[in-house]
Amino acid sequence: MTSNPRIVFAKRPAPHELPKIGEHLIFDESRTIDLENVPLNGGFLTKTLILSPEPAMRERMRDPSIPSYTTTFNVGGPILGFGVVVVLRSEKDGFKPGDYLYGLTVWEAYTVQPYIDGRVNFKAEEWSPGTFDMDSLALQVVPNPNGLYPLSKYTSIMGTPGLTAFVGMEGIIDGKEGETLFVSSGASAVGSMVIQLAKLKGMKVIASAGSDAKVEYMRSLGADLPFNYKKVSYAEFLKKHGPINKFWDNVGAEALDAALESITSYGKMAICGTSGTDATPPNEHYRLKNAYLIMKKCINIRGFIVPDLIPQFIGKFFETVPALMAQGKLRSEETEYDGIESAPQAFIDTLSSGHQKAGTLVVVVARD
Amino acid sequence: MTSNPRIVFAKRPAPHELPKIGEHLIFDESRTIDLENVPLNGGFLTKTLILSPEPAMRERMRDPSIPSYTTTFNVGGPILGFGVVVVLRSEKDGFKPGDYLYGLTVWEAYTVQPYIDGRVNFKAEEWSPGTFDMDSLALQVVPNPNGLYPLSKYTSIMGTPGLTAFVGMEGIIDGKEGETLFVSSGASAVGSMVIQLAKLKGMKVIASAGSDAKVEYMRSLGADLPFNYKKVSYAEFLKKHGPINKFWDNVGAEALDAALESITSYGKMAICGTSGTDATPPNEHYRLKNAYLIMKKCINIRGFIVPDLIPQFIGKFFETVPALMAQGKLRSEETEYDGIESAPQAFIDTLSSGHQKAGTLVVVVARD
Repeated sequence: MTSNPRIVFAKRPAPHELPKIGEHLIFDESRTIDLENVPLNGGFLTKTLILSPEPAMRERMRDPSIPSYTTTFNVGGPILGFGVVVVLRSEKDGFKPGDYLYGLTVWEAYTVQPYIDGRVNFKAEEWSPGTFDMDSLALQVVPNPNGLYPLSKYTSIMGTPGLTAFVGMEGIIDGKEGETLFVSSGASAVGSMVIQLAKLKGMKVIASAGSDAKVEYMRSLGADLPFNYKKVSYAEFLKKHGPINKFWDNVGAEALDAALESITSYGKMAICGTSGTDATPPNEHYRLKNAYLIMKKCINIRGFIVPDLIPQFIGKFFETVPALMAQGKLRSEETEYDGIESAPQAFIDTLSSGHQKAGTLVVVVARD
Repeated sequence: MTSNPRIVFAKRPAPHELPKIGEHLIFDESRTIDLENVPLNGGFLTKTLILSPEPAMRERMRDPSIPSYTTTFNVGGPILGFGVVVVLRSEKDGFKPGDYLYGLTVWEAYTVQPYIDGRVNFKAEEWSPGTFDMDSLALQVVPNPNGLYPLSKYTSIMGTPGLTAFVGMEGIIDGKEGETLFVSSGASAVGSMVIQLAKLKGMKVIASAGSDAKVEYMRSLGADLPFNYKKVSYAEFLKKHGPINKFWDNVGAEALDAALESITSYGKMAICGTSGTDATPPNEHYRLKNAYLIMKKCINIRGFIVPDLIPQFIGKFFETVPALMAQGKLRSEETEYDGIESAPQAFIDTLSSGHQKAGTLVVVVARD
C-alpha cells in the first residue's frame, strides 16, 4: 500500500474570510492506495505531478446557495483544482500509462479519475452559457510537455490562466495596434499573459500591481507603463497616462472606477476577477462612482469565465500559444512550492497576494 | 416677410444644473424670413410642425471639452433637436414641396436646411463606432403620416424613442419568451416602447417609475409588475419579484445596483440613460455597491445610443413597427405643448420629470 495524502475541505470559511490551514483546509495523510490493484471500473489511475492554486477555487468554498460561476466543494471531501497528472494504469480507450493530462483533478497524490465523462470535447453547441461551469474543463491528454517546456507552464501560459487571457483578448478585448490597454493585477498569472498578448498586438500597455517587485516583473514582460497602485492611485496614474481604449480587469473596485473615467468612447472592458473586493464583506466594498459613464461613453463591459469563450478560440490557442512560447515570445515566471503538503499555503498565498513574489505559484507534488 | 421665431442657446448651464428659461434658453422672436425668396443654395426650405424634447439635448449643452455621445450646441446659436418638418420649396432632388421629413432640425419655425449632406444612408460601413454622433440622424423623407397616425407619434413610437427601444431590444436585450425583463423609467418615451416590445416577445415585465399615474400608464401598456420606486425601493421590489434575466436601464444609480443584484448569471443589460444621476454633481451620485457581481455572474453590460445599432436594425424597424402600431399592438400617449414658445418648458419638463404626466411630451409648432 502507498500513502495517498490529500487536501480536505473541512469547513466553509465565512464569506470574504481567507481560509485557514487546520480549520478550513486540512492536510490529510490517513489514506493509502493499492496502486497495483485498486479497481478502475473502466476508468484510469493517475499520479499527481503539478497543482495550480487559482482564485476560482475560493469561489468553490462558498455556501452552495450563493449563485456564482462554479459548483461548490463538499465539506469533508477533498478539494478540486487544476493540475497535471500522469496515467499509471488505464482501462479506458484513449488514455494509456505515461500519458500526461491537464485539467480539473482531485488534490491528492493518486486518483482513480471520476471526471472522465465530463465534457471533453470543445463543441460550441454543448457549451451554451449557463449550462456548464468550470467543471467542464475535464482532464485532457496533452503532449509530454517536458520535452517542450516545464510542467509548471500548466499553471501559467499553457494552463487556465494563459487560456483565460488568450480567449478574453481574442473574444472581448480585440486589441488593435496603437490602442492603449490597461490591465489590473498585471503580475498575476492571467495578467502577465494579458500584458504579453497585448504587446504582440502592438498595443500600449498600462499595468498595475501591488509591489515594486511585481512592477519590475511587468516591465520585464513588456508593459510600457507598469505602476504600483499602493504608491500612486489608479485614478491619478490613468489621468496622467490615459486615456485607455481597453481594460482588462482582475481587481474591480478602485481599478474599475478609474478605468471607467479614463476609457474612451466605445471602449471595451473584460471583467475577469474581483481581487479588490474578494476579501472584504460587501458592505465594506469600495463603491463605484463612475457607473454613469457606461452610457455617456457607450462602454461595453463583459464579465466572463474561460469556458464562455473556449469553443470559439481553443483551436487558435493551441495553434499559436505553444509556438509563441517556444519562440520566447510568451514567457512566465513560476514560484514552486514543494510537495502536496504545501498546497494549502500556496492556495492561501494566491488569494492574499501576501507573498509579494512576482509570477505564478505552483505546487510540485511529484517530479515524474 | 414672415416671423421666424427660434430657441436660442444663450449660456451653458453648469454641469448637472437644470437649464432655465431666460438664462440658458431664450425664445427669440427677432427674426424674419422671406419664404418666397430666401436663397436655397441647392437645398430646401422647411416649415417646422412638431418638435420632440429629448434628454440627449441636455448632453449638447455641456462644455465641449467633456467627452460624450453628442456634439455640443454653440452659445448664441439656435438649438437643434428632433422634429417633423414639411418642405415648402426645394432645389434638391428627392425633396419636393409637401414632403414630410423626420430627423434633426433647428428649433425654429422655418429653416433653410443645412443638414442635407449628413449621413442619410444607413450603411453599416459608414457608421463604425466613434465616427459619428446623433447628428448622423439627418432629416429623412417619411410617408405623409397624418393618413396613418398623428404626427406626434414621431416623438414616441416612430421617432428616436421608439427606434432606440426597438434597436436596443433587438441588438442587446434579445428577449426570449418566459424571461423576465426589468425596465427603469418605464413610463418614459423609450421605456413605454420597451415594455410593449418585451410583452410582444412573451417576456414578463417589471417596470419602475416615479408616480402612481405613471405606474397606471405602465400597467395599461402591459407591464406585469409596475411599481413606484418612491414608495418601494428598487432593491426591495426586485428581491421580492425577481430574479430578472434582462435589464433595460434609463436611470442608473439605485436602479442599476438593484438590477446587478437581481439579475441571473449571463444576464444582459442595455444602458440607455442615466436620469438618476443627470441632475446631481458626480460627487453626490449614488455609488454602486454591486459591481463585483459583473464578474461573478458573467453579466454583459452595454452602454449604447441609437446610431450604434441603426445599420443592423433600421430595416426591421420600418417593416414591423408601423404595422404593429396600425394593429394597435404598439401605442403611446403624448402630452402636447402648444407653439414653439413652449418648447423650452417642454424640454425642461422632459429633463426634470416634474410634470408627473404619463406619456411623452411633444411640442406642436404648427398644424400643417
